[in-house]
Amino acid sequence: MNAASAREREVPAGFEPLRAPLGFVHGIGGFYVHEHLDVLVLRVTASHLNGIGIAHGGLLATLADTAFGVILKRKLELPVAPVTVNLSLDYLRPARDGEWVEAEVSAQKAGRRLINASCLLRAEDRLLLRCTGIFMQPEA
Amino acid sequence: MNAASAREREVPAGFEPLRAPLGFVHGIGGFYVHEHLDVLVLRVTASHLNGIGIAHGGLLATLADTAFGVILKRKLELPVAPVTVNLSLDYLRPARDGEWVEAEVSAQKAGRRLINASCLLRAEDRLLLRCTGIFMQPEA
Amino acid sequence: MNAASAREREVPAGFEPLRAPLGFVHGIGGFYVHEHLDVLVLRVTASHLNGIGIAHGGLLATLADTAFGVILKRKLELPVAPVTVNLSLDYLRPARDGEWVEAEVSAQKAGRRLINASCLLRAEDRLLLRCTGIFMQPEA
Amino acid sequence: MNAASAREREVPAGFEPLRAPLGFVHGIGGFYVHEHLDVLVLRVTASHLNGIGIAHGGLLATLADTAFGVILKRKLELPVAPVTVNLSLDYLRPARDGEWVEAEVSAQKAGRRLINASCLLRAEDRLLLRCTGIFMQPEA
Repeated sequence: MNAASAREREVPAGFEPLRAPLGFVHGIGGFYVHEHLDVLVLRVTASHLNGIGIAHGGLLATLADTAFGVILKRKLELPVAPVTVNLSLDYLRPARDGEWVEAEVSAQKAGRRLINASCLLRAEDRLLLRCTGIFMQPEA
Repeated sequence: MNAASAREREVPAGFEPLRAPLGFVHGIGGFYVHEHLDVLVLRVTASHLNGIGIAHGGLLATLADTAFGVILKRKLELPVAPVTVNLSLDYLRPARDGEWVEAEVSAQKAGRRLINASCLLRAEDRLLLRCTGIFMQPEA
Repeated sequence: MNAASAREREVPAGFEPLRAPLGFVHGIGGFYVHEHLDVLVLRVTASHLNGIGIAHGGLLATLADTAFGVILKRKLELPVAPVTVNLSLDYLRPARDGEWVEAEVSAQKAGRRLINASCLLRAEDRLLLRCTGIFMQPEA
Repeated sequence: MNAASAREREVPAGFEPLRAPLGFVHGIGGFYVHEHLDVLVLRVTASHLNGIGIAHGGLLATLADTAFGVILKRKLELPVAPVTVNLSLDYLRPARDGEWVEAEVSAQKAGRRLINASCLLRAEDRLLLRCTGIFMQPEA
């Protein structure tokens, strides 16, 4: 392993592995959550690519949806992750093999019944995807 | 294996395995495309679930995005799958372990620069997700 | 007035003027609702155009949002029009001066808390806009 | 006129009337654009309301779409306003009679074929609506 690929593999400071139950996120693997910032990261690997060698749109959607669930639950102190009502995803630039993709979540409104939040995906300083989400508040 | 689970595992008539290159769709596995209808199917398994035991939102997004790519390329006789510009996903009902989820694609407009299409995901007669997509026409 | 423009002005069969209180819809004028089909129509006039001589995007959004409110209230027998949570509008083709634009609403799901519906705008046989909407159920 | 209503009517500093050709925006009236910030404002009046006495969803969509057109044309030095491909509007809080609503536009990407931008509508410090838009670059 050379220096470049070693650096690529290094988990960014402040992140710890996302504990996911067995299932879709666990199977994809490689998700990390920041200790206190509203950010998840995932390193793109060969197993995440589509037929033209860039990250599959479904992978980026999965990263965004997972980031929403994990961050909103923690930030809003919900008993469970809120149920997704709508995701609107704008794909701006491709994510490439080996890149760390960062998903930053912000909440615009946490109402009595719904939560509106948005998520930006970046690799280094390139904005890859912007996403808005609508979620159901867990019922009391 | 009892009769019910055998039936669940049976691939619906008219579908053949989707040939996907190594990568995200290949790793998820279990995608089938209809020989001539504009439909893909995927059987939900334990490896597709989220923390509350239903199909992960990212899996359904992946199914929709994959269906768009495969069906639009075939239907519009494109040299490659069109690049996704926007997906807007409305999650209506959960997909459960063992269910066959069907993704039906229809195109509203194939313009000179953009393609507008929509995709409905169903399990039996339940509508699970509606999705609209905007795609870039491959350049000549 | 010649025969063509007379025909343009003729309200399509089965429609009656939409009774709107004073306010935005009243000021725009010219909305009609079908007696029993889930359809509103509006004739585009010079007062609806943008700087390049086609119907303003905001006018078509207003027609879609108004159609959702009127049709969902009637169809689902709600005490009031449901509050709009999200509209996602895909502009496909322009609406031109003098055209009758038809807005047809269909509901995909009327849940306990939310309603998912879609609206298609057409002029003659041209599809102009597709729109999905999410609405809040009125509270008991 | 008392002091409060006079203050309400006062155009915020730095804004000048939006010059709109005859048509939809001209008819609605009352749009102002900031001299150099990427912001439009509109004061909500009785003629903008819906049946429950808040600003009609179509009015806010019109403000957002107009702001995109005016600001993107100026900011990106386009020969004409770019054509709207998609608007996704999340209605967060109502706009009330007499309020000044501010529409702030930011562009995430101006590509060769498409422009991605977003718009936030605020009244004082309340966020009323968030909107993402996709636009076609004018052709050379």
